[in-house]
Parts: sequence; structure tokens; C-alpha cells
Amino acid sequence: MTSSNLGDRDRLVAEHDRALHDHAALVARGLSLDLTRGKPSARQLDLSEALLALPGEGDHTAADGTDCRNYGGLQGLPELREIFSGPLQVPAAQLVVGGNSSLAMMHDTVVQALLSRLPGAERRWVDEPRVAFLCPVPGYDRHFALCERFGIELIPVPMTPEGPDMDVVERLVREDAQVKGIWCVPKYSNPDGVCYSDETVRRLAAMPTAAPDFRVFWDNAYAVHHLADSPVEIADILELCAENGNPDRVFVFGSTSKITLAGAGVAFFGSSPANVAWLIGNAAKQTIGPDKINQLRHVRFLKDAEGLAAHMRRHRDLIRPKFDAVIRILDKELGGTGLASWSDPAGGYFISLDVPEGCAREVVRKAAEAGIALTPAGATHPYGDDPLDRTIRVAPTYPDLEELELAIEGLAVCVRLVATARLMERASGS
Amino acid sequence: MTSSNLGDRDRLVAEHDRALHDHAALVARGLSLDLTRGKPSARQLDLSEALLALPGEGDHTAADGTDCRNYGGLQGLPELREIFSGPLQVPAAQLVVGGNSSLAMMHDTVVQALLSRLPGAERRWVDEPRVAFLCPVPGYDRHFALCERFGIELIPVPMTPEGPDMDVVERLVREDAQVKGIWCVPKYSNPDGVCYSDETVRRLAAMPTAAPDFRVFWDNAYAVHHLADSPVEIADILELCAENGNPDRVFVFGSTSKITLAGAGVAFFGSSPANVAWLIGNAAKQTIGPDKINQLRHVRFLKDAEGLAAHMRRHRDLIRPKFDAVIRILDKELGGTGLASWSDPAGGYFISLDVPEGCAREVVRKAAEAGIALTPAGATHPYGDDPLDRTIRVAPTYPDLEELELAIEGLAVCVRLVATARLMERASGS
Repeated sequence: MTSSNLGDRDRLVAEHDRALHDHAALVARGLSLDLTRGKPSARQLDLSEALLALPGEGDHTAADGTDCRNYGGLQGLPELREIFSGPLQVPAAQLVVGGNSSLAMMHDTVVQALLSRLPGAERRWVDEPRVAFLCPVPGYDRHFALCERFGIELIPVPMTPEGPDMDVVERLVREDAQVKGIWCVPKYSNPDGVCYSDETVRRLAAMPTAAPDFRVFWDNAYAVHHLADSPVEIADILELCAENGNPDRVFVFGSTSKITLAGAGVAFFGSSPANVAWLIGNAAKQTIGPDKINQLRHVRFLKDAEGLAAHMRRHRDLIRPKFDAVIRILDKELGGTGLASWSDPAGGYFISLDVPEGCAREVVRKAAEAGIALTPAGATHPYGDDPLDRTIRVAPTYPDLEELELAIEGLAVCVRLVATARLMERASGS
Repeated sequence: MTSSNLGDRDRLVAEHDRALHDHAALVARGLSLDLTRGKPSARQLDLSEALLALPGEGDHTAADGTDCRNYGGLQGLPELREIFSGPLQVPAAQLVVGGNSSLAMMHDTVVQALLSRLPGAERRWVDEPRVAFLCPVPGYDRHFALCERFGIELIPVPMTPEGPDMDVVERLVREDAQVKGIWCVPKYSNPDGVCYSDETVRRLAAMPTAAPDFRVFWDNAYAVHHLADSPVEIADILELCAENGNPDRVFVFGSTSKITLAGAGVAFFGSSPANVAWLIGNAAKQTIGPDKINQLRHVRFLKDAEGLAAHMRRHRDLIRPKFDAVIRILDKELGGTGLASWSDPAGGYFISLDVPEGCAREVVRKAAEAGIALTPAGATHPYGDDPLDRTIRVAPTYPDLEELELAIEGLAVCVRLVATARLMERASGS
């Protein structure tokens, strides 16, 4: 990414002046737009409105005769586990259905590993001199934050178009027995939409690790969140781990937060029989059971795997026009300028926008001046620190289409403003 | 409790022979009855059947305009906090509404204290050389179990008719800085139905503690679960703590598990502003928010504090006949024999049955032989160890009335059988 596309210095100055003018006009509009979080829009939530009257009076009995209103049932309803077994690539018998938040299941799994010895572990993580997690970057800020508060060290690993750079990952886990985990969003990753290649998944499953209790935290948050016509399939990591003699290596997570209701869905944990027994054994001291009525509600609403797939197509119909609009506007405003590059994901919730090094924070600041709230630059990296200050996460789903278009047009103005200023500085040797 | 009521040895032998005969007849009936857990019956759950169709399509907006379907709102809906503010004696602004399990909130609060420094604490509990909790006995097995798995030492404290023996409590917390907590079920306590006196509550709030981060875990599980015509009121511990210069001392817990649906209710945490900020600050790393739709569902169903009280009267109408039956049968079968004593609670979920020392395990065993499942003897004590082997917890709510009557008649037979045998042993000097 150089200034060559912009031609000579005069042209750069003219472009910057135009951007200054456009930004002033943008500020004058007094917008108030929010692109910060990957939240479903109200219209998406409307798709699940029927849930609000389900299961309905008189319907509270699971397929096996369980009265879902009462206590018990730590593993969750078998019929709901059946629906998600395929999409999450976990046998139903090895799936656990929890509360409304997969983040809470991930957090609790880290907590359990800190306080109760994992299968294969020599000691509790809290008794280790040091615990480190690998964090492919850019990645998901909430993964990083939940580790950071427990003093877990976060080691960035670069992403490639095939997933994390496996040469780096293999070296780190082989050399350092204190590396206990890696965060992965394997399909339509947050934020850059990468889908892990079969070879990446195989290497994660097969690689030797110095830690006997190393775990892959496999946050398959967007397993069924396709934007393209042909859904992406990724390799089955749980099976590959077992085939490679590492059956207990992976913790699979998922949820319906971006399928049914963001705040009132159900979350999933899947793993080997030994890990599931460890999790449920710990959970038995924590709760008398999850909300089985909400699980039954989801069974009645989704019905089966095909019902789930049809529901996700309705989501796609609502959000693909938004992703298309973002790409169209970025192409129109920034295409060919060399000032930015961006992902064009086949699924998931985010578009990752890369600006010239050292510009991301300033772009976010300039957007805020114009009333356009973006996820803080750096949030995609451990400790909020993007060393190249380059990556901006764009979340297109929540605003309506017209607001989104305004916001992305405004964002493009801010990119032009900041990037041209940076290139002028470079040209003058500062 | 002596053998004097039974008169001479011949009479004792005759009573034992009669009990042997009755027990053989009982076993021959092949019963299968379960008095193990404090679960609501299906008829109690039916009282909340309307919840299963609430809030209903189109109704998903909280009083402040929040779309309850989406992410967010860590503290829970203000209108639901208002309903439970009075019953739980916590200002609505200092209440937090969580998921479906108050046990999970208690567990998570212990975990947070282990891993994140409490207000006033010198260090995280996991970094303490030792952490101990006082456990008034008899008490609730799940409180003990959740501590035990983290290596928290459990120190039994005797219960009195006014609550825990405060002379013992005051001495232990004054002398031992590693005593960090006490488990309390202050109203209609599990299992013996004790209500803490105002003086007990005041002393808990005012007592000097060696630990700066000592906490009272105030599990007000039966705050509105009255059996008598005039509800018991207990003193306001949160206010008393503040008045006595210990504002951060108490964590209040509650839930609707035994109000609406045991598996699909909502749980509450209440405390000082500093403790609430600590809890929510930690929760912000754990989840994007609780299930607000289930909270709205509860608001629509209960409506207000009077709606809650009326609902609890309907529960009382269903369960008081069961408690009355237990007391009537115990009076009839064991009254005046000196073989047992029992509580006659004014609320809550349990009756505590005391048999002669060294008999509780054997009574439970004999009941099991006759197909009557009781909570294991010892469960009411830390580490499952009742040193006097004396206390049996009876849970009358779940079975229907006829089953309950059969079970208590059978239990009385087992008490007569085991207690007379024990008295005969004693009489013969063994």
C-alpha cells in the first residue's frame, strides 16, 4: 500500500483538501450512527418473534418425558442437542446445552480449568507459574478480555487467509509448556471472515504440544451464518483430534444468540467424553440445571436441522444487502486509491477494514467527531493494542440500510482524510 | 431424649417386635416413594403455566424502552428488581437479576472472590493460605458442596431456635482472619425452619471480624414462602450492616425457583453499591447479559409485589396440607414415645426430624429397604458428616398427598425400628 496510486504530491494535496471539506460537511450533518457491535437488528429478531409465545401453556414435557419446568437435566434436552449436532460437528451425546451465553460458557470453562484439574493436566491452571493463550489477530476482543482479567498472558499470532499461521502456532505450543490454549473462530472469523482450511484444522488437531493440558477453544459462533449461496464447510476438529491421538484437545462452543434472540438464546459446549464429564461434574456443584423450558422453546421453534437452515436463510436475506452495501461503498469511495483494503466475507457478522499503518485510531477518532461510533481501533488485538494501528472492525448488521450507507460513506471520508494526511507526512519525510 | 417414656425393658422389646413386624409388612408393599429433594410438585408448577406463553408475540420492550430480545443489560430489568426489592430487603438499585439459578450466582460469587479481589480484601482468596466458611448446622448440602470443591474449609456452628449460635460465630470470626464467610438461610432455614431473630441479625451485622473481606452469604431462598397465616419478617441485614459500619459485609441471594418454575426462573443478587459494582464489573467479562426476555416474562406474570404475594398464597394452599400431614402422622406415630423430635416450620420447604444419636443413617437405610428414598443422613452437615448421626431432612412438597402419607407412615416405622433397637442396646450396656 503506497502513495503511487495517487500520483504526485499535488494530487495528494488535492485529495486531502477534498477529504477535509467532505469531513467538515459530514460533521455538520450531526449524525448519530453506531457500528460498534455485532448485534442483530430488530428485523432479524422479529424472525424469532414466535419464540415469545412458546412453548405455550400445557407444553412442558420433553421427548423423554422430563417435566422441563422442574429442576435437573445438567446436559440439556437431547432433542435440542440433536438439532445442533450437525452444525457444530459434535455428536449429540457429547454436547451440553447451557444458559443464554456462549461467552459465559467459555468464561466458566476457563474458570473451571483454573480451579479444577483438566483431564490430562498436572495441576490446576491457577497453580501454574504462568498460563498463556495464543490469540490469532485480528480476533475477538471479548475472548481476550476474559483471559486478561485472570492474568492469562495473551500471545498474538498472525492470521492468514487459511487461519492462524500454523508454523508460528506449532512452534509456540511445542516450545512453551505454559501455552495452555488458543482462541479460534474457525468459520467466518471475527473480524476478517476467514474460514480455516482443512490443513489448518488438521495441523491444530495433530500438532505436538509441550503442555499435556493444551486446549483449542473453538468458538464456532458463525457455524450456520452463511452469506454466500453455497455454505462453507470446515473440517471436523473433534474427529481429527481423536484420530490424531489428542481426543481431549478441543472445546467446541456455539450459541443461538445470532440465530434466535441475542439475549435469550441457548449456548452449547461440545467435547470429548472425558471433557464433558469434567464439565458436567463441575457444573453439578454450580447449578441444579439449565433453563430447560427455553431449550424446549427452541426445539418447538426450530424443529430440526432443516428448520434451522431455513431460518438462517431468512437472516441472510436481511443482512446480505447490508454487507453488499458496505462492499459497494468501499469499492466506490476507496477502490483503486491504495488507501485501504477490506475483507469480503462469505458469512459471519463483520467486515475487516485495513487502513495504512498508524491510521486506525485516528480514523476512529475522526468518525466519532462526525457522530459515527466504531469499535475502538486495537480492540481486535490482545490488550487493545494493534501494533500496526491498522485494523478497523465494521459491524454492518444492526443499523438499518440507509443508516449503514451513511455511516460507511462517512467512514470512507475519514479514511481518505487520515490516510492522505499520513501519506503527505511520509512524502515530506516526517 | 431417653427411654423412660417407653417404660421397662419388656415394653421396649414389645415395641421393637411390633416395629419389626410393621417394617416387614412395609417392605412387602414394594413402595417407590421419593422424599429426597425440595422440589415443587407438578401442581405447584401448574400455578405458573401462563409463563409458558408469555410475554407473547409483539411484547418484548421493557419499561425503559429496552428491546429485551437483544444483548445487554447486565443488572437486569428495573421493573423486576422493583417487585423483589421489598421481599428481599434490598433497594432495587442494588439488586442484580441473573440467570435461572441462585446456586449458580452463589457459586459464581465465590469464584469471583477466589479470582478477583473483593472490596476491602488484601488479596484474592485463591492467594490466601487458607479460606474457611462457617456452616450453621443442620444446613444446606449444596452450600457446603460448592465450597468443598474449591478446598474451602467448612467449620460447623450449632443452630439455635434464633439462628446460628452467635457466641460461637463471634468468637470464630474475631479470632481467625481466614474465616471469610458464613452460610445463612435466614428465614425458614433449610432444613429446620428456623427464622433468625432480630438480635441474631444485628449481631451478624455488627460483629468485629479479623478478616477485612468477611462476607455473610445470605441465601434468602424462602423469603416469601410462608406456611402460617401471618408471614414471618426478619430484620434488614443490609441496612443493619451499613448502620454498623460494615456496608460491604452481606451478599443477599434469592430466586423464583420455588415461586414460578424451578428450572426456568430468575435469580437475584443484592448487596452494597461497592459489591454490586464489583460483581457487575466481573460479569461484564463473563457475559453480554442475562436472559431479559425471561425477566420480562416474570414481570408480566407476577405484575407487582401484591401479585407475588397472592401467587405465594396459592402455593401455600397446595403445600400446607402436606406439611400438616407430616406433622399429624409424626405426632400420631411417634408423639410421646421419646424416640424422635421434629420441627414444625412456619414456612420454607423442609421438616427436620431428629432421631436418637447414632440412628439417622440406619433409619435412612431401613427406609430405602422399604422403597422410601430420603436425603442421605449427614447431608445436612459439612462433608456429609453429622457427628451425632441424628438429623434427617424431610422434603414434603414433591409427592402427592397420599404418597407422602404412606412415606411418612413408613418413615415412622423405620424410626421405631431403629430407635428401639438402639435403646435395647443401650439398656443392655452395649
